[in-house]
Amino acid sequence: MDFKDLLADRTELMQANAIREILKVVSAPGIISLAGGIPSPDSFPMEIFRELTDRVLTAYESRALQYDLTEGFMPLREQVAVLLESRGIKTDPDAVNITSGSQGVLDAAAKLLITKGDKIALEAPTYLGALSAFNPYEPEYIAMEMDEQGLIPESLEETLKTHKIKFIYLVPTFQNPTGRSLTMARRVKIAEIIRQYNALLIEDDPYSALRYTGEALPPVKTLAPDNVIYISTLSKVFAPGLRIGFYAAPKFIREWLVLVKQGVDLHTSTFNQALAAEYLSGNYLDKQLPKIRALYAPRQRAMMDALGRHLPHDFKVSPSDGGMFLWVTGPEGMKGLDLYRKAIENGVAFVPGQFFYTDPEDGLETMRLNYTMADEETLERAVMKLGQAAEAL
Amino acid sequence: MDFKDLLADRTELMQANAIREILKVVSAPGIISLAGGIPSPDSFPMEIFRELTDRVLTAYESRALQYDLTEGFMPLREQVAVLLESRGIKTDPDAVNITSGSQGVLDAAAKLLITKGDKIALEAPTYLGALSAFNPYEPEYIAMEMDEQGLIPESLEETLKTHKIKFIYLVPTFQNPTGRSLTMARRVKIAEIIRQYNALLIEDDPYSALRYTGEALPPVKTLAPDNVIYISTLSKVFAPGLRIGFYAAPKFIREWLVLVKQGVDLHTSTFNQALAAEYLSGNYLDKQLPKIRALYAPRQRAMMDALGRHLPHDFKVSPSDGGMFLWVTGPEGMKGLDLYRKAIENGVAFVPGQFFYTDPEDGLETMRLNYTMADEETLERAVMKLGQAAEAL
Repeated sequence: MDFKDLLADRTELMQANAIREILKVVSAPGIISLAGGIPSPDSFPMEIFRELTDRVLTAYESRALQYDLTEGFMPLREQVAVLLESRGIKTDPDAVNITSGSQGVLDAAAKLLITKGDKIALEAPTYLGALSAFNPYEPEYIAMEMDEQGLIPESLEETLKTHKIKFIYLVPTFQNPTGRSLTMARRVKIAEIIRQYNALLIEDDPYSALRYTGEALPPVKTLAPDNVIYISTLSKVFAPGLRIGFYAAPKFIREWLVLVKQGVDLHTSTFNQALAAEYLSGNYLDKQLPKIRALYAPRQRAMMDALGRHLPHDFKVSPSDGGMFLWVTGPEGMKGLDLYRKAIENGVAFVPGQFFYTDPEDGLETMRLNYTMADEETLERAVMKLGQAAEAL
Repeated sequence: MDFKDLLADRTELMQANAIREILKVVSAPGIISLAGGIPSPDSFPMEIFRELTDRVLTAYESRALQYDLTEGFMPLREQVAVLLESRGIKTDPDAVNITSGSQGVLDAAAKLLITKGDKIALEAPTYLGALSAFNPYEPEYIAMEMDEQGLIPESLEETLKTHKIKFIYLVPTFQNPTGRSLTMARRVKIAEIIRQYNALLIEDDPYSALRYTGEALPPVKTLAPDNVIYISTLSKVFAPGLRIGFYAAPKFIREWLVLVKQGVDLHTSTFNQALAAEYLSGNYLDKQLPKIRALYAPRQRAMMDALGRHLPHDFKVSPSDGGMFLWVTGPEGMKGLDLYRKAIENGVAFVPGQFFYTDPEDGLETMRLNYTMADEETLERAVMKLGQAAEAL
């Protein structure tokens, strides 16, 4: 039977893309991969995990294994409300919802808001997972300009002036792929703009807890609470395999997002939500976070140092205070994809930056390097090989 | 800020509906609810759950908490392939995928296949969760006729002759809401028809393991393997709160479904998949299933008996060999919704059957009764109250 004729129109935007082919190579033996985007298993609280499961089964018994509300497991919503307060977001447990990873909110928001052809404003470059959530709903993308201080407010204002935008999507802190953060002054400015233009912002914040240097910055949500869907996750500070994301959104949007989620997965795993609730209420997160930062901070530093020593002088690295990535821009005319091929021959992989842009002509000379999955020595070796590949090019 | 203008067109089909309002009433104190659709917590393998978590952490360590393939956790896929073989479905682990409950496959299949206005053929009545998965993609529904032996093959053939159908959706065994099963002769006939018309069938099979009487029937998938997406779940035989569903589908469809799922939730909880893998590989399911049947079979019998004694003679109950529901049809002109209101006054709740039809004029005299959540005595009491309400009407 031939099924091609059965595919919905939306599948045109969903073709398997080049980055998937690239990521297949990087798990080949003998390759040091800087291409991934996943936390180190050494960051997981393995030593307390039996204790956590035990606490859950004692506290909730069969309730932890039963169907539960689409909105989320109330003991976790209570804990997430406290966590959000610590980030300056005033909310209460009823106004916090849990999803299956932050991917789950991105899909639900796209499903709720995008009619084919609607315009979404994005940073260029942007997070690929967001594009894979949005694409099936057939939006058009309006790319906005960034520099080392994050999104340029004038580019946002220009975009809102000249286009009818359904929503703006930003990762303001330690962005994937660039590791950049929006400065405080720009947060204030951007909050002003979205209030002025009555615009809806999806603020995706998976990384802000992974700060290695500098002062904490408040979410844009705290500066324009009525205009922002604030999304975060426990994937980088607990365990990604549990698939726990959460969000705080204006009431009208939130109620609709729950209705959307009900059709997608009924609710997020009750057992995993209960584990997350115990992780937060038992103050395990507070003990784990310094360990995670102590694991990643020297890796980031080692990679930054090695890039300075091994890359040709016309390569530039974006400053970054945290997260999981560093962003490198080669000289004009250098192609990240060519460097990628050369680097693979040398035994090191990364993701060419062009894949993080919606315009295929953009970012050809850029690359994203991950530093969470290798120790300092390995990172030094990998960057040396990368430098050799760059020199050879 | 007013967000109404931001909603996608598809939300028109997703308005909160009357059944949600009805289900709010049924958790009121003093009401015996036959309205639910959830397994009894007494069916969960609580006594081995600590052992299971321990086995998972010992066998997989940090891998159980890490990101994993969208296709599913390989040790679980291996076990599910064995389970499917036991149901007569020849497959291998690579060809089996895991989703976040069977809801996850329903959403992905709808997203993959439905362009606005496409026609989906359904049994009338049908499973509500499937409608909530399909509705956001704006299909048209073609309702097909059922009787006590399940879908009437002639109705399917007529539908395929007169409409261009994207896919057919059926729950052939112990259907929700009717508890009915498609007979063997009809399975053969329906397999013939879908092969002849080159039609795609989504066969949803959450309940077949919950058989209390009669002989096992093979999935339609075994009779027309190339035309069927076969969906099942561990929610009714392990723990629904873990959200583990799975499916076997033709290769082309399967690869697309994985791509769709990636944008929705990246993958299903690794930890829960590992728990499910251990549950199956450790033969815990084989030990648990007889216990679950021994819990539900007497409840079904008790409800069936009580309905015979307490309902007026012009009410008819559909025969059923398993699952979680019984289906009652009142005399012509009787309104299930009126009886519902009267029954609530008497302290018993159920779901009026009309909500399971896509045509609002259909099924007005029907009702769905769940028997998994109450013991035999309570069921006797509930049905007595229901009978009194019916007499009073």
